[in-house]
Amino acid sequence: MTQQFFNFAVHATDGNTRRSTFTTPHGPIEMPAFAPVGTLANVKTLEPRDLREVGANLILANTYHLYLRPGHELIERFGGLHKFMAWDGPILTDSGGYQVFSLADQRKVDDDGVTFRSHIDGSTHRFSPESVMEIEQALGPDIAMVLDECPDPLDRAYNEEALARTHRWAERCRAAHTRPDQALFGIVQGGVFADLRAQSAAFLSELDFPGYAVGGLAVGETKEQMYATLDVTCPLLPQDKPRYLMGVGAPEDIVEAVYRGIDMFDCVLPTRIARNGSLFTAEGRINLRNARFAEDHAPVEEGCDCYTCQTFSRGYLRHLYKAGEITALRLGTIHNLRFMERLMEQIRAAVADGTYAAFRSEFLARFTITDQVKRHEQRAKRKAAIAGK
Amino acid sequence: MTQQFFNFAVHATDGNTRRSTFTTPHGPIEMPAFAPVGTLANVKTLEPRDLREVGANLILANTYHLYLRPGHELIERFGGLHKFMAWDGPILTDSGGYQVFSLADQRKVDDDGVTFRSHIDGSTHRFSPESVMEIEQALGPDIAMVLDECPDPLDRAYNEEALARTHRWAERCRAAHTRPDQALFGIVQGGVFADLRAQSAAFLSELDFPGYAVGGLAVGETKEQMYATLDVTCPLLPQDKPRYLMGVGAPEDIVEAVYRGIDMFDCVLPTRIARNGSLFTAEGRINLRNARFAEDHAPVEEGCDCYTCQTFSRGYLRHLYKAGEITALRLGTIHNLRFMERLMEQIRAAVADGTYAAFRSEFLARFTITDQVKRHEQRAKRKAAIAGK
Repeated sequence: MTQQFFNFAVHATDGNTRRSTFTTPHGPIEMPAFAPVGTLANVKTLEPRDLREVGANLILANTYHLYLRPGHELIERFGGLHKFMAWDGPILTDSGGYQVFSLADQRKVDDDGVTFRSHIDGSTHRFSPESVMEIEQALGPDIAMVLDECPDPLDRAYNEEALARTHRWAERCRAAHTRPDQALFGIVQGGVFADLRAQSAAFLSELDFPGYAVGGLAVGETKEQMYATLDVTCPLLPQDKPRYLMGVGAPEDIVEAVYRGIDMFDCVLPTRIARNGSLFTAEGRINLRNARFAEDHAPVEEGCDCYTCQTFSRGYLRHLYKAGEITALRLGTIHNLRFMERLMEQIRAAVADGTYAAFRSEFLARFTITDQVKRHEQRAKRKAAIAGK
Repeated sequence: MTQQFFNFAVHATDGNTRRSTFTTPHGPIEMPAFAPVGTLANVKTLEPRDLREVGANLILANTYHLYLRPGHELIERFGGLHKFMAWDGPILTDSGGYQVFSLADQRKVDDDGVTFRSHIDGSTHRFSPESVMEIEQALGPDIAMVLDECPDPLDRAYNEEALARTHRWAERCRAAHTRPDQALFGIVQGGVFADLRAQSAAFLSELDFPGYAVGGLAVGETKEQMYATLDVTCPLLPQDKPRYLMGVGAPEDIVEAVYRGIDMFDCVLPTRIARNGSLFTAEGRINLRNARFAEDHAPVEEGCDCYTCQTFSRGYLRHLYKAGEITALRLGTIHNLRFMERLMEQIRAAVADGTYAAFRSEFLARFTITDQVKRHEQRAKRKAAIAGK
């Protein structure tokens, strides 16, 4: 049904890694791809022309947040998300599951759906597979996600119980979804447990979704557990469909996940840390609020082609960050997103050249990750999911 | 001495109104001109490319704020303000006098200068005519302002006392200023008192500055008092020098002041109110946070050529403002500054055509000013001057 609107073509493989294109009604997504997050139909501090400039070819918007504010029906009356936010490239919406299950004691799940209280005004709402399909079809992204339950990836008993529900919900979403110009992706769950992931991959493969996400990762497990889960899950997913690792966006995780066969990513990390002064370079992150940059005349990253690096010094940016100027948040966001897109361009080139293993080793040897950064990331993540930050 | 770097040419006059060009080392300023305010070497939410796009041909930066943070010496080591902030067009700096005198009980004036406490950390500092010239010459704008005292415009006794000091400070600034590639402007004071303004205009004209500001207005007097003061002051200023009304930027005030012979303006108003959701149209201001715009598919202003109006609906912008998205502040700022620059373009065309009186009547008949807006403006102004907002 969706074949006239969507196509997935793998151009080259290098080990488990693929160089591919997923074609959508709003243009092709060159993969491996990274999607900046535009929670409220807006990538914070940016405009559509900025997203084009940094090279984004897919963005994500959040169903939970848009359902609450301004409402999917209002957005539908504006002609859908693309017209509402004036972005004519591909859009993906999540299902809201992750946000709702992050609400902890403010939500209650049953087999039919999940009842929750709004983080904005405490009002009560309910999501079911059918209602979420109605919302996502009203929003009108190119790619929609099924409603799933997102358990703690380390809790075996909860994952067993939730998996059955997630699978029934996937079937119901598949049945309720009717837009031919929107691709509905399934989501494999099962925490860090290889047998549950295998069971989930097998069940969902049968439903023949046009794409598959690996959900429930990067929310508490170690990086090693995440990579091991990808090692067992990716080979069990259909070869002829894109594979999407949800909520992952640390450069080192992207490099490792692509190595294991993932094609798509989304994450608030590059945009969120940019607003805090933390910017990516090939050697790792630097925080421009640090006093050592006060008299630094160099750009954020030598050789970067983004507007920020082509125009301003670290010293000027530090001044703006320290003074609380909004422009700093924007200039940092532009750099971090361009960094991510350059990373994806390098990844795609390496796969096409058959040199991905070498690229991976080189990147990881150069890019420094501090423990402090890792801890901060995981703490901030759950909080931010709810607040929409 | 500054003749090789600066030139003032009047192309047309229409009553008291002039169409002119002031040439600076960083390009021509087409007058009448409006300067957006970039307090901390940055027009809030924008970048140099945005300023070019909206048509700004002069921007203002604040000496008081930059002296405190990041410091004029640091900026000098970066090659001055133009290089530091990557704006290669004309820049004007005020003298810091207005900010310091807005500090109320946190400053103490004597004949030699003024001692004040920083609004950031309470530390004690001192400005004298000579130290301010040192700071402004280090910052390196195209136009610098003399240090003046800014009394309550309605307080006759204080204005009399302050005027003598302001005049001595003007002489000392003139003597201390040595940069040939920087034009130092004098500032006429005297509150709303015609005889004091006449005395000030006469004294400063003798010092032969390359430009003259009318200071101490739009800070508490009525609009009628402001216009009456311009009526008596403008004719007493040299015909062959630009005339600058400091801190004025309400569209109706600009139209009235140009009518009376003013050539230059600066104001935080368009950028500050934009961050609050208040946007200009030819009919007056609208506040996009208002519920009536939720389903409005029209642009902010029909016929406006700014990026915001060309790209987004009022409904989308309202959503961004209500959700607290930074992008809204920026899109509003772009529109308000483009509105101001379009106004200045229309003013310049009307003067050139000899139709300024008709333009003025038409504009004022269409543009609605509410009392609420006026009161809000004056309250916000003093506060904002100190906080640098």
